[in-house]
Amino acid sequence: MENRKIPYKIYLNEDEMPKNWYNVRADMKVKPAPLVNPGTLQPMTAADLSPVFCDELIAQELDNDTREVPIPEEILGFYKMYRPSPLVRAYCLEEKLQTPAHIYYKFEGNNTSGSHKLNSAIAQAYYAKKQGLRGVTTETGAGQWGTALSMACAYLGLDCKVYMVKVSYEQKPFRREVMRTYGASVTPSPSMETNVGRKILAEHPGTTGSLGCAISEAVEVATSNPGYRYVLGSVLNQVLLHQSVIGLETKIALDKYGIVPDIIIGCAGGGSNLGGLISPFMGEKLRGERDYRIIAVEPASCPSFTRGKFAYDFCDTGMICPLAKMYTLGAGFIPSPNHAGGLRFHGMSPVLSQLYHDGLMEAVSAEQTAVFEAAEFFARTEGILPAPESSHAIKVAIDEAKKCAETGEAKNIVFGLTGTGYFDLVAYEQFNNGTMTDHIPTDEELAVGLNALPPQPTF
Amino acid sequence: MENRKIPYKIYLNEDEMPKNWYNVRADMKVKPAPLVNPGTLQPMTAADLSPVFCDELIAQELDNDTREVPIPEEILGFYKMYRPSPLVRAYCLEEKLQTPAHIYYKFEGNNTSGSHKLNSAIAQAYYAKKQGLRGVTTETGAGQWGTALSMACAYLGLDCKVYMVKVSYEQKPFRREVMRTYGASVTPSPSMETNVGRKILAEHPGTTGSLGCAISEAVEVATSNPGYRYVLGSVLNQVLLHQSVIGLETKIALDKYGIVPDIIIGCAGGGSNLGGLISPFMGEKLRGERDYRIIAVEPASCPSFTRGKFAYDFCDTGMICPLAKMYTLGAGFIPSPNHAGGLRFHGMSPVLSQLYHDGLMEAVSAEQTAVFEAAEFFARTEGILPAPESSHAIKVAIDEAKKCAETGEAKNIVFGLTGTGYFDLVAYEQFNNGTMTDHIPTDEELAVGLNALPPQPTF
Repeated sequence: MENRKIPYKIYLNEDEMPKNWYNVRADMKVKPAPLVNPGTLQPMTAADLSPVFCDELIAQELDNDTREVPIPEEILGFYKMYRPSPLVRAYCLEEKLQTPAHIYYKFEGNNTSGSHKLNSAIAQAYYAKKQGLRGVTTETGAGQWGTALSMACAYLGLDCKVYMVKVSYEQKPFRREVMRTYGASVTPSPSMETNVGRKILAEHPGTTGSLGCAISEAVEVATSNPGYRYVLGSVLNQVLLHQSVIGLETKIALDKYGIVPDIIIGCAGGGSNLGGLISPFMGEKLRGERDYRIIAVEPASCPSFTRGKFAYDFCDTGMICPLAKMYTLGAGFIPSPNHAGGLRFHGMSPVLSQLYHDGLMEAVSAEQTAVFEAAEFFARTEGILPAPESSHAIKVAIDEAKKCAETGEAKNIVFGLTGTGYFDLVAYEQFNNGTMTDHIPTDEELAVGLNALPPQPTF
Repeated sequence: MENRKIPYKIYLNEDEMPKNWYNVRADMKVKPAPLVNPGTLQPMTAADLSPVFCDELIAQELDNDTREVPIPEEILGFYKMYRPSPLVRAYCLEEKLQTPAHIYYKFEGNNTSGSHKLNSAIAQAYYAKKQGLRGVTTETGAGQWGTALSMACAYLGLDCKVYMVKVSYEQKPFRREVMRTYGASVTPSPSMETNVGRKILAEHPGTTGSLGCAISEAVEVATSNPGYRYVLGSVLNQVLLHQSVIGLETKIALDKYGIVPDIIIGCAGGGSNLGGLISPFMGEKLRGERDYRIIAVEPASCPSFTRGKFAYDFCDTGMICPLAKMYTLGAGFIPSPNHAGGLRFHGMSPVLSQLYHDGLMEAVSAEQTAVFEAAEFFARTEGILPAPESSHAIKVAIDEAKKCAETGEAKNIVFGLTGTGYFDLVAYEQFNNGTMTDHIPTDEELAVGLNALPPQPTF
């Protein structure tokens, strides 16, 4: 192979790594709508939120103005254990696709939790520890967030209680064991340990659980146990703030070689990875400095951006959490059972929702067999077994690179490779055996959730 | 945390990466004994070996003299996809152990195959492709080698037939699916597809297989199908040559910061990782330039170095392979069923065996519960979930660091972290549940294999 000016993997030196998170809200002309109390329909104050969240995280959640937030030294120290993550030039993929496009991916799977979730997990655990708390509670679906939080808590000596969607708990025993190896307690949700769990089990005795239901349980346990708070791995503004480290590193690495992306692509479930990856680029776009095409890719079976409503909705099934204004399919929406992998949340980050609503980014949906085709092609070509979530971005990056092959344009395509698929091999097996199916919900199926949105605030 | 001169992770730039493999045999005064034909008890020639192995690999296998072997450009290109691997300063582990020792580990798990095996897999697949072959056959036990070879073959468009020890095939369906995702065919061994498989099944109808038996099947299939050759992930001289890239990178990284290791530690099953890690250091030792303590760590349940005999033995159960002179427990030895993870081969690399026999390195054995305790401690402290194999090295590195805490010596300890434990969570679950047990074979148990060694050559 010829000598290449741009290395396969662009790593930053320690002194090049970002020292601040970037808060994209500071540059948004239209700010994301505030969280709202479902009883009063008035914006939540810091005091309203403090039984649930850590104080410093509440401050971050509500702060729409501070552009640069210093990353505490202790978190920078932890980041050094697995960051910078590599920005990889996908030379092999380009060659296989015979495309003039230059493809880059930011690979966040090079840590034991296997995904980008660790970037926010360590931050949230750190602020909990700083506040003198005993522990934190959370929910997990596919398990990436729970694993990341368990690692962060083990590092800091915090107790960690994870409510894991029952179907995942049973189908992904290895995810559970990783969390236990890191010292976390893992409870299948719904459980008999909480009021909300008992209520849901009484109403739906055979239920295999949902993310929204596990959130309700984790929040109840946090608010009813002294010294505990609830933490969440996506959707929230604070999470996007912490995840901005992905985009900042990406931008520094690209700038180092004078590369300007034309298209930036990320998968979107609750928005944690996409929001982080795009943040500094979106900042330039918001400030009118530069334009980029930014594409969110979501599963056709859980299409909140492309088929949801932009409205206030509950984040949880138990309806004990604040309302958030977001693209939503309704808190009652549960993806079809044949849906593999994550990206199954009914809503979307309020920040990304506002940006999408304002026409600053695009969204497309992909069916899962096509996503796994892209995943397998990528694995064989680039050598990394991708998570199903990440493979949504791969699918669209390949589509865009193929378009370049037709037009002859040498576009720079950057996508987020959020994690590895080691714990998703049941789904890979279905794909390998040809038994994987797609499911695009009908309008009637979506109407159930969309027609049951809560009363909307009028402020 | 304070500013540190030595970064958490020492990465090499592309231009610092090794361009040659290093052949430690060139510096050995006493060369490893040659492979021998079990029928004639005479050394195997290249012509004898050519029905089984690729020509260029045979040349490498037999070459005890060439010190530096250029790494072909194509392989350097592939290495760039996942190399250099980081050399990590274990700051967190040092702090937790309160030791003045400086601990470094070379982490080879940052690729989808999850281990160092890929370094030799791509080399062997490359030479097979270069020879114009259609495909290769191999065996796999724990699955690291099979996964690595599948990835390498997918990259080069070679067919790959893997014979997987039946018990692993059944207990590790996810390993199997990764290999299938990379396009390999995976057959549980013993199978009805081969003469040797049928013979073993007839004699032992309920057998769950062994590595030695899977080797026999893979060799038979390679030699009876035109356009196929057999490849092996450990034991052989050629494998140690390819794996020298681990040690070379380690040495370059240490030299960059003026660090001289006092102790170098690696786990040892067939010797592929240990042989690669230590090679340039052993070279200095053999040339009298510098001294190092070098420690091999093996499972107490499969103790070839510490309780085996240094003698000619078969590498496979079916006794169709050449004889190798090595530390061996006898080709009939099968580790106790409670043994988790790899490192279950009855023999050991002839190169390492000779070096050990000549007093140039030490060997210790570790029991598996102690190994998993070290693994869990390491995971919680350093954030990486280690493979059980690698955890043998972790255990002894921690022991040595604790000794430094007692004596106050600031030794530099380097160990090989060969891979990740994502596919070993059944074993972690046993450990987490407190149901994992140890088994140290009795002298009587070992005598069965040790007393059945083949006739020894007299040349």
